[in-house]
Amino acid sequence: NVFFHKTNRFYCHFQIKNLIFHTTFPGSTFEQAKSHPRDVAVLSPEVKTPIPGPKSKELMGHVQNFQNTKALSFFCDFERSKANYLVDADENIILDCFQQISSMPLGYNNTELIAVGKQDNLQNLLINRPAMVTFADMNFPRLVHDSLLRVAPEGLSNVITMGCGSCANENAYKAAFLWYMRDRRGYELPPAEDDEAYSSCVMNQVPGSPKLSMLSFEGGLHGRTLAALSTTHTRPLLKLDMPAFDWPIAPFPKLKYPLEEHESENAKEEARCLAVVEDLITEWSKRAPVAGIVVEPIQAEGGDNHASDDFFRKLRKIALKHSVAFVVDEVQTGVAITGKWWAHEHWGLETPPDIVTFAKKMFIGGYYFNDKVNWKTPSRIGNTWMGDPAKLHLLKKTIEIVKEQRLKDNAQHTGNYLTESLKSLENIHSTALEGSRGRGLFCAVDVNGSRDKVVKEMLQRGVLVGASGPNSIRFRPSLIFTPTHVDIAMDRLDQVLTSVKI
Amino acid sequence: NVFFHKTNRFYCHFQIKNLIFHTTFPGSTFEQAKSHPRDVAVLSPEVKTPIPGPKSKELMGHVQNFQNTKALSFFCDFERSKANYLVDADENIILDCFQQISSMPLGYNNTELIAVGKQDNLQNLLINRPAMVTFADMNFPRLVHDSLLRVAPEGLSNVITMGCGSCANENAYKAAFLWYMRDRRGYELPPAEDDEAYSSCVMNQVPGSPKLSMLSFEGGLHGRTLAALSTTHTRPLLKLDMPAFDWPIAPFPKLKYPLEEHESENAKEEARCLAVVEDLITEWSKRAPVAGIVVEPIQAEGGDNHASDDFFRKLRKIALKHSVAFVVDEVQTGVAITGKWWAHEHWGLETPPDIVTFAKKMFIGGYYFNDKVNWKTPSRIGNTWMGDPAKLHLLKKTIEIVKEQRLKDNAQHTGNYLTESLKSLENIHSTALEGSRGRGLFCAVDVNGSRDKVVKEMLQRGVLVGASGPNSIRFRPSLIFTPTHVDIAMDRLDQVLTSVKI
Repeated sequence: NVFFHKTNRFYCHFQIKNLIFHTTFPGSTFEQAKSHPRDVAVLSPEVKTPIPGPKSKELMGHVQNFQNTKALSFFCDFERSKANYLVDADENIILDCFQQISSMPLGYNNTELIAVGKQDNLQNLLINRPAMVTFADMNFPRLVHDSLLRVAPEGLSNVITMGCGSCANENAYKAAFLWYMRDRRGYELPPAEDDEAYSSCVMNQVPGSPKLSMLSFEGGLHGRTLAALSTTHTRPLLKLDMPAFDWPIAPFPKLKYPLEEHESENAKEEARCLAVVEDLITEWSKRAPVAGIVVEPIQAEGGDNHASDDFFRKLRKIALKHSVAFVVDEVQTGVAITGKWWAHEHWGLETPPDIVTFAKKMFIGGYYFNDKVNWKTPSRIGNTWMGDPAKLHLLKKTIEIVKEQRLKDNAQHTGNYLTESLKSLENIHSTALEGSRGRGLFCAVDVNGSRDKVVKEMLQRGVLVGASGPNSIRFRPSLIFTPTHVDIAMDRLDQVLTSVKI
Repeated sequence: NVFFHKTNRFYCHFQIKNLIFHTTFPGSTFEQAKSHPRDVAVLSPEVKTPIPGPKSKELMGHVQNFQNTKALSFFCDFERSKANYLVDADENIILDCFQQISSMPLGYNNTELIAVGKQDNLQNLLINRPAMVTFADMNFPRLVHDSLLRVAPEGLSNVITMGCGSCANENAYKAAFLWYMRDRRGYELPPAEDDEAYSSCVMNQVPGSPKLSMLSFEGGLHGRTLAALSTTHTRPLLKLDMPAFDWPIAPFPKLKYPLEEHESENAKEEARCLAVVEDLITEWSKRAPVAGIVVEPIQAEGGDNHASDDFFRKLRKIALKHSVAFVVDEVQTGVAITGKWWAHEHWGLETPPDIVTFAKKMFIGGYYFNDKVNWKTPSRIGNTWMGDPAKLHLLKKTIEIVKEQRLKDNAQHTGNYLTESLKSLENIHSTALEGSRGRGLFCAVDVNGSRDKVVKEMLQRGVLVGASGPNSIRFRPSLIFTPTHVDIAMDRLDQVLTSVKI
């Protein structure tokens, strides 16, 4: 069985609190096995109850007293979880290929992060809530240097922190609007005697509060505050009944996979979408000029939709041609999961993006930006907290670990193995699966039939994956995911497709 | 000297790291002095350098390499700061009456919070970033019960967490929109076969994405993401060049202080504003119906503008009469600073608000809500992180301390003393000061002349206060602020007004 090879293993077990993990280290010899960091221990998932189990259901009853629980899958026992394994409230041990919606770069309870959490320099920022916009911590410049700036995308030497991905994008849009108005007017601020500009903006009226827009793509998701939501076009229940900014929306290429087998028709589809982008920019110039374009390197919630590097290079050129800001949303694609720290590094851009937004595996939200879109006057961008700087200590250590353990390489290699394994399964289950695709460990496959049932049945067999778009399964494992973990996941997917009518 | 009485004191000093604090405990006898919790130690501020000092300026130079520093006042040494005293990067010891823009209920480095920060149950949530929207922590229901629900406003049994105040308000508005549409249509969702509703909302178009509005007040501040910013009407530089939702804006009463001396003219002014609110609701019913009204109990950034309890009772009745949601933004007024946990508890409402939003001294953002505005289908409100549940452990301990140390009473008593002291100063400096006002420790006074200069000169004398609106000084001290701290602040304000031309 290609999916769960049972030979050449060294068996042992280790204990986390009072839960015994029966673990297997992959590798062909005892020595190789020993050389693996403890955090890549492999074990077979153990599911004892339906998920959600009785304990999770009881807890849902408690939450129901103060909150709608309809989005809750189950409850986690974070204390007992470790690395790639999430333990739920019913003591089920689950191989987690979703990692808190892609928020955990190193899996659960990384030993070194645990040490960082108790450090005085982190605790100072946890206990004392800085209003960073005005009263910054004296260690902040050094900390940013050792964390955020170490992984700054090429060409973007500025960075600002925010509380979450939605705030990151909202503020990136604000930066685009500020830059656009400065650029078009030729100077930073209207003269002080221009009362109309200053008084109208306070009342949300032109000219101070201009009609401007962000161009986004069908299938994109950029957050759920109302402006971010106006650039989000995935599930209707996220958007129904919500007022929105009426901003231009372009089609995102609908490509055929594997990409290398459909190059010419995919190129045509991408050209069609790029033409619409240009048309929209022109069309909206009278109505609400496009100040920026926002795009995900891979549409991470809207169906794991890929586009070619060439598409993004051309899109960047369109932004330059029309002098609009180019905003790349790397909230989900960032932090090495595609094999590079930032997914847009794959593109080979001649001119870097103007803004790159982040959150999730970065522990904190925010965005990198170039000097062009920097603001020059006070109070233009900011809020009281500017996110939580304590998290930068976790990021700093994570960057060190990713480098030391060569986890970008692991994402690339294990990711290739995951995509190849999905393709193998696609060959076996050719009516049920199609469209296997991935960049590094950022992988997906489409299901013909009930995708939700497949996700649910996999969970019941101890493997947690996510849904993406209408019919895709997404994998967002940690960066310490190994080929043997891939084998386990593929084995369970194989089991589901073999034994369950979907 | 009423402002800094020098008699009956017990002198001692204690040491934080390597900085010696020369402290004075207030009280008329040795025994009374000893009985004070250590955290109310009083000391004279010590300013050795101009603020920002050379070290702060050097650090600003470092930050300037990656971020605009125009909003930065100075850098803080959080490790050395204690209780009501903020130590800056240049070792200046500052009496902090602003507390990180009102974000610190117990001052710096509260001993009990330090212990909580290192607890395993907090660390589990710090190291393992839960995607609370789907995979909640098994200890979350209990933790919410012991923290957020212990201080739930009367009538609001539901609560949801968010990352910051802007997200709290954005999501409160979303809840209002959801409720409004459900209420007007008579059921939760359009039927599944109503393709137009579901497909139009994804493209930001009616009918799925309806024209609806939130009514806000001139002088209000509700956050800086774009929808929250559309309800914010304070400083033009926050809003200039930003597109906004065109939503109705009502005047907020401009009252004369002291309120008790101007009751009848203030009542007329409030009646005028309430009439405009009703007119706007009617007027906008065709254009973009008002789904909710959002208001601060005291306009906390826009000038510390108060309104009477009667105004808010009538405003609440208007919301009921027109069947729109009543959203009270307690981001800055919450957490005992007005003498009650929530400022709106002073109003004596017959019907509680529908939604109360919070952040700042609550450590986490979010909002309380009643069953009416709860949503019934999944995916309507939420995001990946839903704020940072680790912070709820800090809130839990804070609630215990506020109760044990009777800090609501302290806020009331010390606050009364602060307002009275401001009024005394107003009598002495009758051309420079006017409009002393406060509720508990939430206090302000207006400056005739350069308010910014007064704030700056006070800081240079070791007392940090904030600006509010065009000409007010605001006090947002911790809940452990004492009358003797008031004396120090008043002494420095007196010095400034006596010796500096403003």
